[in-house]
Amino acid sequence: LQIDDLVERLCQGDPRALARALTLVENRSKDAREILSRVFGHRGTSAVLGITGPAGVGKSTLADRLAERGRALGRDVAILAIDPTSPLTGGAFLGDRARMDAGARDTSIFIRSMATRGHVGGLAGAAFEALFLLEAAKKDIIFLETVGSGQDEVEVAAAVDATLVVLAPGLGDELQAAKAGILEVADVFVVNKSDREGADALAHDLSLIAGERPVRRTTATTGEGVAELLADALRIAAGRAGSRDRRLMEVWLRDVLSTTVRDRIRESSWEDALTALVAREVTPYEAAERILAEL
Amino acid sequence: LQIDDLVERLCQGDPRALARALTLVENRSKDAREILSRVFGHRGTSAVLGITGPAGVGKSTLADRLAERGRALGRDVAILAIDPTSPLTGGAFLGDRARMDAGARDTSIFIRSMATRGHVGGLAGAAFEALFLLEAAKKDIIFLETVGSGQDEVEVAAAVDATLVVLAPGLGDELQAAKAGILEVADVFVVNKSDREGADALAHDLSLIAGERPVRRTTATTGEGVAELLADALRIAAGRAGSRDRRLMEVWLRDVLSTTVRDRIRESSWEDALTALVAREVTPYEAAERILAEL
Repeated sequence: LQIDDLVERLCQGDPRALARALTLVENRSKDAREILSRVFGHRGTSAVLGITGPAGVGKSTLADRLAERGRALGRDVAILAIDPTSPLTGGAFLGDRARMDAGARDTSIFIRSMATRGHVGGLAGAAFEALFLLEAAKKDIIFLETVGSGQDEVEVAAAVDATLVVLAPGLGDELQAAKAGILEVADVFVVNKSDREGADALAHDLSLIAGERPVRRTTATTGEGVAELLADALRIAAGRAGSRDRRLMEVWLRDVLSTTVRDRIRESSWEDALTALVAREVTPYEAAERILAEL
Repeated sequence: LQIDDLVERLCQGDPRALARALTLVENRSKDAREILSRVFGHRGTSAVLGITGPAGVGKSTLADRLAERGRALGRDVAILAIDPTSPLTGGAFLGDRARMDAGARDTSIFIRSMATRGHVGGLAGAAFEALFLLEAAKKDIIFLETVGSGQDEVEVAAAVDATLVVLAPGLGDELQAAKAGILEVADVFVVNKSDREGADALAHDLSLIAGERPVRRTTATTGEGVAELLADALRIAAGRAGSRDRRLMEVWLRDVLSTTVRDRIRESSWEDALTALVAREVTPYEAAERILAEL
């Protein structure tokens, strides 16, 4: 009954219901499964824009400005920031407070930070489930912000319509930092902090690897270039409408599968297997066979 | 027969056999399983030191210097650099050439770069298997170098004896970049490029969060502080000898389990499930149940 109510309000776009449902998803509670199952029939029409790049390039500020621009265009927008932070405390170390301030400026922008909490599976399935909930809440534009380490971006790229790779001058070895993984998934390159020294050189270097992909310059703190960037991103996203669904389903299914297997393994058979491994009585392959046979 | 020979030479520390075995592991070939099964009885006595931190702080150079110092102490050393790079090309974008040059300076240091290739499972199990092979090859010190995004470091920390978290001044928001995940797994903090402006401030900031953990200053390009850092790391590693094995077995088993499950799923039933998901005929949870029932 409570879930009925929550689902109904969520689908009407109620931010409190959305926030509550996201918490359930983040905690991987059973209620989350129930909610997701109920809204699963929904087919989203959101434009989902990935924003990634190394730490310190101003991704959060840029996401805020893009969201504000989306609002100015009359769109219902949300920011989902995936935080590859502490598995121990489950919280962000720094920066969250700045983020909340930005959110407070325009309460009609739904902002959510989500820790990945050291889940096995990289950028945890929780992120994909959260994305699905935001779509069910009928957001027009969803910004999915991640710190670019190269690994997770591949999965993120599978779940978004367009990926903005953000870099900034003065960060040291910018291109070195932006490992091939994130350069390859880029649909638009962004030189943020473009009023700083080195922006020209960075834009030039990027243009060499960008091919036909646009290289945009922004200064998120002043809003310079943000409108043009959003227009680019939405145009690319619109050109791909529909193709994302299958990819999202694929990464989501893969995650649900491994979570399900893990949940089914009895604590005792896991401990037995580990003890046998440490004693070198079985190989990891044999131990895995044993565990699977018991399922 | 070829495998017999390879395993024998590997256990004698032959670098060519080791390189070949690592390639098989990286490609996740069946031969790799066979090799790992044969050397699995081995109990490593290597000191495994994790080196992590944001891109651009000079981790590779520092790892090279630490390895050279290890050589100078008469130890057999190896560097395993985990590269969260392109799943498309499987190679590093920049920096590999510089790395090879460093390796060429002292051919007795075994250096291996390993791409994670977008494996589901974050820092892929291949890394743990590679570590096991390096131990079987009786390396005295193994440096495991990763780019710190926060997520993978948790798994890496489980597989090493001591974790060095490397930062450098002048990278922008250093502490912001070093997300809580990597700060928490640190056993030693390293301020590299310590001849640069801002090094004092960074060392001071780190000392505030370091607690009783040492904060070391190094300049990898000149070798300054490297000997002291290696001494610190080896002392910590020695104090923990033995406790790593169970943790390594745990992450390895988890990886083998999910790989095994994935390998068993027939292509056709995976495609059927995806089609049903896209058509919204089943939820991901129902699809996962169906697939598992077929196994």
